[in-house]
Amino acid sequence: MAVLSSKSSTGLLEPANNQAGGHEFLSHRVSKKNDTIVQVGNSPIGSYDVQVAAGPCSIDFEGLADFAVELKKAGANIIRGGAFKPRTSPYSFLGYGEKGLKDLLEAKEATGIPIVSEIMDSSQLPLFADVDMLQVGSRNAQNFTLLSKLGEIDKPVLLKRGMGNTLNELLGSAEYIMKGGNSSVVLCERGIRTFEDATRFTMDIGAVPVLKRESHLPVCVDPSHAAGQQDLVIPLALAAVAAGANMLLIEVHPDPKSAMSDSSQQLTLDQFKSLMRRIRKLEKAMRH
Amino acid sequence: MAVLSSKSSTGLLEPANNQAGGHEFLSHRVSKKNDTIVQVGNSPIGSYDVQVAAGPCSIDFEGLADFAVELKKAGANIIRGGAFKPRTSPYSFLGYGEKGLKDLLEAKEATGIPIVSEIMDSSQLPLFADVDMLQVGSRNAQNFTLLSKLGEIDKPVLLKRGMGNTLNELLGSAEYIMKGGNSSVVLCERGIRTFEDATRFTMDIGAVPVLKRESHLPVCVDPSHAAGQQDLVIPLALAAVAAGANMLLIEVHPDPKSAMSDSSQQLTLDQFKSLMRRIRKLEKAMRH
Amino acid sequence: MAVLSSKSSTGLLEPANNQAGGHEFLSHRVSKKNDTIVQVGNSPIGSYDVQVAAGPCSIDFEGLADFAVELKKAGANIIRGGAFKPRTSPYSFLGYGEKGLKDLLEAKEATGIPIVSEIMDSSQLPLFADVDMLQVGSRNAQNFTLLSKLGEIDKPVLLKRGMGNTLNELLGSAEYIMKGGNSSVVLCERGIRTFEDATRFTMDIGAVPVLKRESHLPVCVDPSHAAGQQDLVIPLALAAVAAGANMLLIEVHPDPKSAMSDSSQQLTLDQFKSLMRRIRKLEKAMRH
Amino acid sequence: MAVLSSKSSTGLLEPANNQAGGHEFLSHRVSKKNDTIVQVGNSPIGSYDVQVAAGPCSIDFEGLADFAVELKKAGANIIRGGAFKPRTSPYSFLGYGEKGLKDLLEAKEATGIPIVSEIMDSSQLPLFADVDMLQVGSRNAQNFTLLSKLGEIDKPVLLKRGMGNTLNELLGSAEYIMKGGNSSVVLCERGIRTFEDATRFTMDIGAVPVLKRESHLPVCVDPSHAAGQQDLVIPLALAAVAAGANMLLIEVHPDPKSAMSDSSQQLTLDQFKSLMRRIRKLEKAMRH
Repeated sequence: MAVLSSKSSTGLLEPANNQAGGHEFLSHRVSKKNDTIVQVGNSPIGSYDVQVAAGPCSIDFEGLADFAVELKKAGANIIRGGAFKPRTSPYSFLGYGEKGLKDLLEAKEATGIPIVSEIMDSSQLPLFADVDMLQVGSRNAQNFTLLSKLGEIDKPVLLKRGMGNTLNELLGSAEYIMKGGNSSVVLCERGIRTFEDATRFTMDIGAVPVLKRESHLPVCVDPSHAAGQQDLVIPLALAAVAAGANMLLIEVHPDPKSAMSDSSQQLTLDQFKSLMRRIRKLEKAMRH
Repeated sequence: MAVLSSKSSTGLLEPANNQAGGHEFLSHRVSKKNDTIVQVGNSPIGSYDVQVAAGPCSIDFEGLADFAVELKKAGANIIRGGAFKPRTSPYSFLGYGEKGLKDLLEAKEATGIPIVSEIMDSSQLPLFADVDMLQVGSRNAQNFTLLSKLGEIDKPVLLKRGMGNTLNELLGSAEYIMKGGNSSVVLCERGIRTFEDATRFTMDIGAVPVLKRESHLPVCVDPSHAAGQQDLVIPLALAAVAAGANMLLIEVHPDPKSAMSDSSQQLTLDQFKSLMRRIRKLEKAMRH
Repeated sequence: MAVLSSKSSTGLLEPANNQAGGHEFLSHRVSKKNDTIVQVGNSPIGSYDVQVAAGPCSIDFEGLADFAVELKKAGANIIRGGAFKPRTSPYSFLGYGEKGLKDLLEAKEATGIPIVSEIMDSSQLPLFADVDMLQVGSRNAQNFTLLSKLGEIDKPVLLKRGMGNTLNELLGSAEYIMKGGNSSVVLCERGIRTFEDATRFTMDIGAVPVLKRESHLPVCVDPSHAAGQQDLVIPLALAAVAAGANMLLIEVHPDPKSAMSDSSQQLTLDQFKSLMRRIRKLEKAMRH
Repeated sequence: MAVLSSKSSTGLLEPANNQAGGHEFLSHRVSKKNDTIVQVGNSPIGSYDVQVAAGPCSIDFEGLADFAVELKKAGANIIRGGAFKPRTSPYSFLGYGEKGLKDLLEAKEATGIPIVSEIMDSSQLPLFADVDMLQVGSRNAQNFTLLSKLGEIDKPVLLKRGMGNTLNELLGSAEYIMKGGNSSVVLCERGIRTFEDATRFTMDIGAVPVLKRESHLPVCVDPSHAAGQQDLVIPLALAAVAAGANMLLIEVHPDPKSAMSDSSQQLTLDQFKSLMRRIRKLEKAMRH
């Protein structure tokens, strides 16, 4: 019944020898034994502590800098915020664009910690000159033109897994970036498409140990998008840390109910504070 | 576009009022506010400590009682072992049946802790008279004849989620048992079918907080079947505890390589000892 | 990256040599080159014409015999009707049981064509003595106790694919029946669980040519359950015939709106007549 | 249990009123009752006959023009061929780029029928000036920057469904193109990601009647990518026609074994001739 398994014909990374046409995969353990630490401003991803990026889904309110100061006080290591938003429908709120990035840069100045935001096309690169880390969203996870361009610059990339992509494909996408010379890639699990509809996506917790084993790159988890619901974010974030994640991406909003996107899944500041306390306790317990 | 979402026609539990023909769902929070503790021998599932059931996939070696004593020393609360094995192919090893159950009962006597094993059909009930907890496997998760029969007896049931079942359907299956009067049901996440093939199944970690929120029943996680690989079991087990699981089901074998089923996913005794140390540390950290 | 594909550890039918412990798989081409024709009463499944089984989801109205006569006139070859209904919730309508079977037997007498109905447990076998074909539902597709019992009797089995099962697993289930000596098995595709929610299930049309290639057993398609919506049933039924299906299972009800189960997906008699005309035309075109 | 279905929070097209912020969805029936015919050169997609686009996955051989003449003789209405190839790994063959497009334009001249090829980024638009139809691949199905740019030009777009996208999301992507003023969009089903691995993807045949019902845009099916195997392409293509598809995309290669991509799924010229004869017969039967 050899024919009854034909997915190997999809052109995935060869399993046998971890090579393709004589090239070793740069993202794989075989190319580099030690864990890679991706330095984002003063935040070392892949090092001792779990690095937490926190902030609103969209920058859709005034006073981001002040809010970012609170997030930093609560323990956030990086500030996240969406300026360009890829949405299923073009009639949804698509972000405030350059105005949003300007607010985010003010937050960077106010806090002294790095910022991360999503880039949707390489033509936007000039706008992101002072953004510390570029996020590639799930919908662009196999936009190979964008990935190749990000390989040519000297800036860390947070690469989200496509909602319909295997882990092999995620590593293939990382390879497009690394092939160009940029090895500062953080792999991000954010939930995959399955038949279960009690959560927005199904967070593939197994992705964490599999990626840590197969690749030397740091692994991030985004429990906010996977859950789609506020009350699930904390248990899923703790699970990610327990499974070995190096970074978390957490949506926090000063007033989640009024948010112009993802309002049901963003934490309040108080919830975020509680989450941070629990994360640090968990980390400590896991070390000893 | 009302027609573009038709899954509500599948006869799932009614979302609106949590009722069907005037019946409240017994498994839901609305029927019972406080968490249920399912007592299995001297092991209280749903209480303070995570209860760990450990043992071989199949009872396929001599000396189970001695091995069980070691498992108990390492911290196991319940001994598991398969006597009747549902396998995809009828030509695979299908378990030693009654002989296996006999060995398991000896393990119970030697350790003084309860035992759990899988029942495949209600005609086997007399053989399980002294087994403390009956496991319903993923393939029988919607065998409603079996579930209804288990509702008529007075013995705890470990109900595994079908690999193609939603959480709504898992609760529906629990309802078949509870409707008959048996409310000692533990819900078990064991991985679902998705497109990802780096793991044997995709462990739906989100199932834990969703089930804890929607139902008062205790929640178990089986990382061994979800992972399908030894080295993934420990991080997935820790993730399950961090997410709030009340019970774990861990496959441990004195010599995994020689096992007649699931040889790639069973832990050695030493690995299990290490896992138990880490679980207890994690639990402690989560309490304070 | 050998570890990045671990689904081969699930105990599926061996791909390499189509054997397990020296046994050839009886359901596979390698065991029997010619297509099997399963004779159900006077209906030869797997022969020249597509055989169409039609009738209500549940037998939930008076006058089934008269309705069956109309279905036969419209071209149905077999009458279907549910007496025992496996439903997600125990509070849903579970069928009229023996009374339903009695009505179905009257339909058999009135029409002179064979009948098919679902059996949920082997303890029901005596009730099905005069039923021509036993249907195993999707939820019992891996109820190996039931499948083994059906292997010991001399009656055709319509084996539905589990909603979370691969085609390999469907053949494994067929093998449980055939191993006992009963080789009258018809394989039935009825939709699988995927992330798409515009249809009740995703009809895996590729299953038809794959099963025809790998197995000598006839292949049935159930577009009614896959679609979950009346207006999709006709195009999906025609697609199944074009792909090479040997049998169709179509839900038809004298008054779909009043049906006690699956009311949104059952055809009216007029719709069924139109479907039959189109099927026969399609078949004819495909032959020349 | 309202919380047990949270996928509505994903920002999908509103089901209730088919509007978003006062905008009617241009791709939906409610905006336009009559079926749209997309004219590609002399090929009217959505009109009487099924339009068949045929040609190699990659243009990886000399003599495309001569081969295209043969394809036209066999009944092809449009010539397809890949010049820029998005591949999982950057070390795979990525297409001959401009040289490939040059060959394709020669095929257009030699045959007098239109051509279609995949565009990966809007920066490539000048190269596609004389290409009749622009294909957006599955991996760019939610590359909203590219889609928006294609909305500003006056050229038909063949929009493939993302392998992890719902039909709602496919319509959302079409909306990005139409919003800009380009209403010449053909929706293309090409297989989705599921747990089944006997086929490369699972062809969602139900997508055809659902899209025909919900949208006025023509629907194309690509059985080659869905199947991943040569011998499955013909039955799946016939199924697509029977289900109501307006267009087919078929990979044909003069020597499939030597192809530099997708070698296992491309038809030979003889197989394509046989397919075309069967398609035309099927169509004729379905009309009367």
